[in-house]
Amino acid sequence: MEKIVSLAKRRGFVFPNSEIYGGLASAYDYGPLGVELKNNIKKLWWKFFIQDREDMVGIDGNIISSPKVWEASGHIENFKDPMIECKNCHARYRADKGGKKLKIKLNKLIEGFDKNLKTGADIPTYRDSDVDLSGNCDFCGAKPNGENFTPPRSFSGMFRTHLGPVEENAEIVYLRPETAQNIFINYKNILNSTNKKIPFGIGQIGKAFRNEITTGQFIFRTFEFEQMEIEYFIPDPELTGFDWEKSFDEWKEKMNQFAEMIGLKKDEFENIEISKEERAFYSKRTIDTEYKYPFGQEELWGLAYRGNYDLSRHQDYSKEDLRYFDEKLEGKEKKYLPHVIEPSFGVDRALLAVLCSAYDDSEKERIVLKLPPVLAPYKIAVAPLLGNKPELIEKARSVFELLKKEWHCVWDDRGNIGKRYKSQDEIGTPYFVVIDFDSLEDDSVTIRDRDTMEQKRIKISDLEKYFENKFSF
Amino acid sequence: MEKIVSLAKRRGFVFPNSEIYGGLASAYDYGPLGVELKNNIKKLWWKFFIQDREDMVGIDGNIISSPKVWEASGHIENFKDPMIECKNCHARYRADKGGKKLKIKLNKLIEGFDKNLKTGADIPTYRDSDVDLSGNCDFCGAKPNGENFTPPRSFSGMFRTHLGPVEENAEIVYLRPETAQNIFINYKNILNSTNKKIPFGIGQIGKAFRNEITTGQFIFRTFEFEQMEIEYFIPDPELTGFDWEKSFDEWKEKMNQFAEMIGLKKDEFENIEISKEERAFYSKRTIDTEYKYPFGQEELWGLAYRGNYDLSRHQDYSKEDLRYFDEKLEGKEKKYLPHVIEPSFGVDRALLAVLCSAYDDSEKERIVLKLPPVLAPYKIAVAPLLGNKPELIEKARSVFELLKKEWHCVWDDRGNIGKRYKSQDEIGTPYFVVIDFDSLEDDSVTIRDRDTMEQKRIKISDLEKYFENKFSF
Repeated sequence: MEKIVSLAKRRGFVFPNSEIYGGLASAYDYGPLGVELKNNIKKLWWKFFIQDREDMVGIDGNIISSPKVWEASGHIENFKDPMIECKNCHARYRADKGGKKLKIKLNKLIEGFDKNLKTGADIPTYRDSDVDLSGNCDFCGAKPNGENFTPPRSFSGMFRTHLGPVEENAEIVYLRPETAQNIFINYKNILNSTNKKIPFGIGQIGKAFRNEITTGQFIFRTFEFEQMEIEYFIPDPELTGFDWEKSFDEWKEKMNQFAEMIGLKKDEFENIEISKEERAFYSKRTIDTEYKYPFGQEELWGLAYRGNYDLSRHQDYSKEDLRYFDEKLEGKEKKYLPHVIEPSFGVDRALLAVLCSAYDDSEKERIVLKLPPVLAPYKIAVAPLLGNKPELIEKARSVFELLKKEWHCVWDDRGNIGKRYKSQDEIGTPYFVVIDFDSLEDDSVTIRDRDTMEQKRIKISDLEKYFENKFSF
Repeated sequence: MEKIVSLAKRRGFVFPNSEIYGGLASAYDYGPLGVELKNNIKKLWWKFFIQDREDMVGIDGNIISSPKVWEASGHIENFKDPMIECKNCHARYRADKGGKKLKIKLNKLIEGFDKNLKTGADIPTYRDSDVDLSGNCDFCGAKPNGENFTPPRSFSGMFRTHLGPVEENAEIVYLRPETAQNIFINYKNILNSTNKKIPFGIGQIGKAFRNEITTGQFIFRTFEFEQMEIEYFIPDPELTGFDWEKSFDEWKEKMNQFAEMIGLKKDEFENIEISKEERAFYSKRTIDTEYKYPFGQEELWGLAYRGNYDLSRHQDYSKEDLRYFDEKLEGKEKKYLPHVIEPSFGVDRALLAVLCSAYDDSEKERIVLKLPPVLAPYKIAVAPLLGNKPELIEKARSVFELLKKEWHCVWDDRGNIGKRYKSQDEIGTPYFVVIDFDSLEDDSVTIRDRDTMEQKRIKISDLEKYFENKFSF
């Protein structure tokens, strides 16, 4: 892991945020190569899951929405409770409820909690003495010995801020903790403007924010992160007989396919069925896809069948009729709330997995980032064999200009050619085109392949044809 | 303007945010067509200003950075003052300073303002009686008559929030009010990881947030918006003799070129030189480019020569040596702080200008969105002439599958062909490919052009060639 963090900083993939000011915990900025890699992952996702499918459209919603959205979604309610955290495994328990094995008795009523949160006043702290713990942690078995658990604290998972420049008149609003709700609140507008029929889905890429207790592991868990989420609306299975399990399996397959497209090997990730006990009560099936990160097997992305929970909440809270009119449905009542299947991806986690899978230092002489060509920040490096020969430079420039029209290319003429190969290998550039003295005679160049290190001689006039299908999927 | 807002909602470009909850003021979500249009603008900008230039790289920084960044940038200082606003022209004056013509005398000391801001406590309000106004508004000449100006209020331009889930231990952090500072704080890391030599620039696209007093005019001014910013680092002109004015003019030209690439006509926008008096004190030249929106001529984007103001502030506050080592410089001291030229674009404003320029209802029969093809959400619509003939559908599907591999296409088989042309004209789809009964015999299709409405017969096997260069720039 250290090697990847080090490479990421040294070559400009990921920098610690605010580093000149000593940094900000769990905050990172993507550098020149990182932003290209990240954009390429997002573009591939968007093409594969949105643009190439007639049953999908995209949106791009605000980070800040009406606070009513988060009342309806249950986020305010669920984030407002004081919680106790196991210091060992970081499991959290609602202080008023406890877990299955961990019993919590509050010695003093936690009052005013609700009110404080709404008015934005400070939330009181609690001490260990406010609470009696017994049993042990549901997850890791830690026993309450006065040290293993935190006192009840308000773990406010959402970032709150004031909208309106004059604070005393301002409204409390939240930074979205997930992109999904933008989709639900726009679903009716999207139906109306696109004339889509269900089953169809809406996808979105964007930032989300969670005031996490546990952060860390580089870009794996950060308070600010980027999501790629889909809500796939399907007919109510009970009313219509729609086979949701088939649709769910198709999404599972598509997600596995995407994993392979971004270079994750089959034995590096695992689809884990979440048991009924661990699922949200409204979910009939949930899969967590875990990736074998260097620091352990952890969640990469997930797929959940959420029923009509979200739309029904928004219908209740907004008093808008969010039902879908299904002209195919027989009988009197043709309206119902669609159900949803939710494939949900983290961009930063996916990018980290991509880096981990691509990173290869098994060869003695070099480090290679074996990125799928479609994801590589630079597709082709171009250079004269010697960086100080004007006639080579001129020829090489003409090749560079030719190729950069179509592909993101990099000019690399610093140092000897062996060093330059290594330098490009390390950032995953799939091809290196070298112009030498023979090129001046035969109008050919050498293409050096990142993975095989093989060199191939090819006519300049054939270059575009050669690269034509190398960077698509 | 109303026509554009209406079209934007009806066809899925822009929806009011949280509409089912009565909306949130000045907040919008981009719908299925809007997100494609916006992505296309961003992609074009990124290709033109970053990827196609060897002297540019990109980054993608956090929205939330260390609060020290905003101390250094001067944003906290400048946003913390109570201000008085002219209700007529919305000019703001610091209550403790006033303007050139507007004199402000505070009857009561505004105390504790600083402290309150740091602790996050509520900021007191002031009444008209706390202040004596005389003279008149510097900008519109309004006279203080007890009604024309607001009382002093804390116009906190930055959104504040707490980082850390437990509020009482949390750090106050800010949502960035501009993307530019991410560039300055990473400039040294970027120099080190890329080996770039100045002049070179760093560009970024991302969300920014301003708790504006004045919002409104659809997506023109919103509290959450997206920027595309560049800091172009140049040698210190005084030390090196570097011709910053030439570089500035080149950027001006590039920006004008971009305006034309996104379809803005020359007479629709204007570069306005900002006089010395109106410029920031550190700027030697500033241009505001204004666009003739339906509601008036307003700022579209800007270009400013900012000297080394930002880097020198960050150097002072961070105590890091941010100087550039210029090996070309003669004499003993080869290190200096680069100066910057800053081209700064608003994505949402650009998108609104694109919509305004493209919107054409001058023809009786139809509304056409004459978007540059590179920006159109869908490049090509494909359909059978009749939507109920299986043999036509089958043929049309094969054409659709062929074209959608390369371009974002839409299948449109609803209603008669004339209506479908109109429907696609209204969303700016440049071409409509129709498969008719003749197609079954001659393997040809009709291509209908959005702007000229001309129809052309072409072999299916020639289609890819025909469209090849239609959607690049």
